[in-house]
Amino acid sequence: MENNFSFKTRIQVRYAETDAMGVVHHATYPIWFEQARVDFFRAVGAPYDEVEREGFASPVLELNVQYKRPCRFGDFVDVETKLVHEGRCKYKFLYQVTLNGELCTTGYSVHVFTKGGIPTREKPECIKKVEDKIFSD
Amino acid sequence: MENNFSFKTRIQVRYAETDAMGVVHHATYPIWFEQARVDFFRAVGAPYDEVEREGFASPVLELNVQYKRPCRFGDFVDVETKLVHEGRCKYKFLYQVTLNGELCTTGYSVHVFTKGGIPTREKPECIKKVEDKIFSD
Amino acid sequence: MENNFSFKTRIQVRYAETDAMGVVHHATYPIWFEQARVDFFRAVGAPYDEVEREGFASPVLELNVQYKRPCRFGDFVDVETKLVHEGRCKYKFLYQVTLNGELCTTGYSVHVFTKGGIPTREKPECIKKVEDKIFSD
Amino acid sequence: MENNFSFKTRIQVRYAETDAMGVVHHATYPIWFEQARVDFFRAVGAPYDEVEREGFASPVLELNVQYKRPCRFGDFVDVETKLVHEGRCKYKFLYQVTLNGELCTTGYSVHVFTKGGIPTREKPECIKKVEDKIFSD
Repeated sequence: MENNFSFKTRIQVRYAETDAMGVVHHATYPIWFEQARVDFFRAVGAPYDEVEREGFASPVLELNVQYKRPCRFGDFVDVETKLVHEGRCKYKFLYQVTLNGELCTTGYSVHVFTKGGIPTREKPECIKKVEDKIFSD
Repeated sequence: MENNFSFKTRIQVRYAETDAMGVVHHATYPIWFEQARVDFFRAVGAPYDEVEREGFASPVLELNVQYKRPCRFGDFVDVETKLVHEGRCKYKFLYQVTLNGELCTTGYSVHVFTKGGIPTREKPECIKKVEDKIFSD
Repeated sequence: MENNFSFKTRIQVRYAETDAMGVVHHATYPIWFEQARVDFFRAVGAPYDEVEREGFASPVLELNVQYKRPCRFGDFVDVETKLVHEGRCKYKFLYQVTLNGELCTTGYSVHVFTKGGIPTREKPECIKKVEDKIFSD
Repeated sequence: MENNFSFKTRIQVRYAETDAMGVVHHATYPIWFEQARVDFFRAVGAPYDEVEREGFASPVLELNVQYKRPCRFGDFVDVETKLVHEGRCKYKFLYQVTLNGELCTTGYSVHVFTKGGIPTREKPECIKKVEDKIFSD
């Protein structure tokens, strides 16, 4: 990923995450992306459980994954995460999964903040404090 | 299983449920058991979402699984479920997973009813109505 | 979805598929899509386990999910599936998840056939036999 | 756990691991146990992927989980793991999941080594080298 703030999460492939093809099942990557988001938010001082305690949620509106190389049990992969604005209310996380520096998977997810289940332009206090720091665009 | 009321759920093995050994991952069976419980409750007229609407939950206190033969992608398995009392407040589900009549897995789970997170002897109305019918002991 | 061949799979939401927001976790949908693909292939007479027995696999190259309305425990959803060509070697599944006719989620996945892990233009015999029938474009 | 060799794995609860009760779904614990086993084996110098490379597998024969206190998203839990003999060919892992020192879950799993799918008394070389060190009984 280009410049700006990004965060890297190391993930150890679980045996349960593999499938009968002997590789990580494709539905595992969205779960790794989520883990990477959570680590990103905690790293910048706005942990997602605090977002929830403030009464907000941040559901996924769209998810995209591009599979390039498989990962396997025993691998330790890195998920690099970066955050960009996507219109007024939406924000987008970009992900790159690498294994020993080789690109395995890329993806993105689009989110919005909701309060009581309703999308809102308002942002959690903990996010506002770090906003300048975390958005790359 | 002996006599009494029991219920059979048919489950189609999902590719995502297999692992790199080429068989169904062992942590999948508790999810099938849960599915079987849910089908059991609906079959007797006390669906679990009604249990929740009455303000109850019914968490798992103990889980046991005995693995005898593996299941594979492409298999359609049957989970037979039976309910027995376990002391005053607890109840126990017994499970048998079979593939074409051959026993693959057995297990049980012990549950209690809770209200507001607190274990209670009280039972949901929808359960009380069918109680005589569903317990085998 | 427009006209042409499509297939509908009914899926019962599992409790294990929900998350702390009280709705189906977003990483569940790719697993439902896979289930829908498997049912699609079996419905047309080319079951995926036969594809594998012929020495082929058909990994996911790209996955996309658009989340519109949440699903919940207790829901029975329908996943409608349709298959289109995507270039020479790739094919694309389109998905629509509905609950009582209301659209909840859409998505697609792009696939290729591989033999011994290598992408190939060759197709499994069981697919060739039904090819005219299953592609919508 | 008593004395002897044991290993502690720290696990960060994933959002995907929670359910609509707002707590970690009970079928998640067997996956954590597996992760803890894998970490145990690597910590003693006999990583499970090496076990597999030697042509062995080590399937689960029995699984037991006792649920005492729920864990939640945002929690970092510790899984303490210990290994004991269970008859001639079987071995048993004992698990304790704690959150800030408080016991949440206990469990065990019974395993056997297999070669080509057949249970065997033989052990992988990498296990033999550390055997004296890792068994507590």
